[in-house]
Amino acid sequence: EIAALAASCFARQVLAGLRVLITAGPTQESIDPVRYISNHSSGKMGFALASAAAEAGAQVTLIAGPVHLPTPARVKRVDVKSAREMLKACEAAMPCDVLIAAAAVADYHPQTAAKQKLKKNPQNPNGLRLQLVCNPDILATLAQRKDRPFCVGFAAETEHLLEHATSKLRDKNLDLIVANDVKRSDIGFNSDDNAVTLIDRQGQQTRLDKARKSEIARQLMGLIASHLPSPINGSF
Amino acid sequence: EIAALAASCFARQVLAGLRVLITAGPTQESIDPVRYISNHSSGKMGFALASAAAEAGAQVTLIAGPVHLPTPARVKRVDVKSAREMLKACEAAMPCDVLIAAAAVADYHPQTAAKQKLKKNPQNPNGLRLQLVCNPDILATLAQRKDRPFCVGFAAETEHLLEHATSKLRDKNLDLIVANDVKRSDIGFNSDDNAVTLIDRQGQQTRLDKARKSEIARQLMGLIASHLPSPINGSF
Repeated sequence: EIAALAASCFARQVLAGLRVLITAGPTQESIDPVRYISNHSSGKMGFALASAAAEAGAQVTLIAGPVHLPTPARVKRVDVKSAREMLKACEAAMPCDVLIAAAAVADYHPQTAAKQKLKKNPQNPNGLRLQLVCNPDILATLAQRKDRPFCVGFAAETEHLLEHATSKLRDKNLDLIVANDVKRSDIGFNSDDNAVTLIDRQGQQTRLDKARKSEIARQLMGLIASHLPSPINGSF
Repeated sequence: EIAALAASCFARQVLAGLRVLITAGPTQESIDPVRYISNHSSGKMGFALASAAAEAGAQVTLIAGPVHLPTPARVKRVDVKSAREMLKACEAAMPCDVLIAAAAVADYHPQTAAKQKLKKNPQNPNGLRLQLVCNPDILATLAQRKDRPFCVGFAAETEHLLEHATSKLRDKNLDLIVANDVKRSDIGFNSDDNAVTLIDRQGQQTRLDKARKSEIARQLMGLIASHLPSPINGSF
């Protein structure tokens, strides 16, 4: 049924003319010129979403953290490293109609990024204490704007998946959230497959069974299109 | 002159029959199932060295951190993530005749790797203190063994390059060290080119001008072969 909806959406170019902003990949937070903190996001899901959105007729801007992936056809790509750079690039790409925040943005960055490579501390050869401070919350920041787009978030969790995702939807004032169990090794980070649950503001859940990320992305585009409010979604 | 030496070494299969162990790439040190600390090493220099050593007739074992590179021909590759895994893999590959430690091994790992994805701390929404503890020093550990191989280290530095490299050669009891200025953006991390200075125990320096990493690797094999003690280097 969802696959049929998706197929019909593409046939009808359901996102035609809409400006869709997608974030993808991890961010890298510098400790010094050599070392950084990052995460296992491969960017594959976000790139698949960009590809599917372009196929559905959208004008797609893809803000990508450091990944090893080719740019999808008919997609404008902007490469960034840190969460703060990603926020700036997103703000520069506003306004847009739909925001899909698939990037795994680091929650923290080191308080100080050293200008030179840190040497082991001779005062304390056994350890180092790294003070981390919060990054800006990109999705919450954009969802608070006056020209707020339709906001789709991702929750990558290793436990209490649906509870965490539902809290995130509410706390960040999102329209939809995609819950992604990254504990399973057969899906999620760096896998070519995924299985997700989409949750809307009314708490309605739609499960997308395990499939190629490209297929999951197409199904998500159909579901996102069907949730768009009528002033945006003129063709429905 | 060095290029000529290198060419002559390959013609004579100067490392024929020698067991050469090479480490390459960064290591990844887990903070939790999603986040980690790593560094900008691409593994390209280490993989080029493995390829050049195999070309020169050596039996090559390549212990690789997480990189996006194909395995060179006639090279046995072992993939690892953390520094502690890399040390174990190196110890399992001993004894060997020559060790070339080109990996950018993390000096520290988080004291505790959380089993579940860390949530932002509600007690302190603005920050997080990460306690790091020292990793084992792979090169120094192997250089202290009774069956110690001929040890070649790398020093990737952003300042005081030759001083730091010389200290490392002495402190870790190495035979040769390759000093690599990673501050220059045209060489070093993730570049296809490099320019290095080789330093021996007598303090003699040999500069290899900027060239493709494959070419630098060939020149280094020639220089390493010419420094091997006669019981190993039977053919000289």
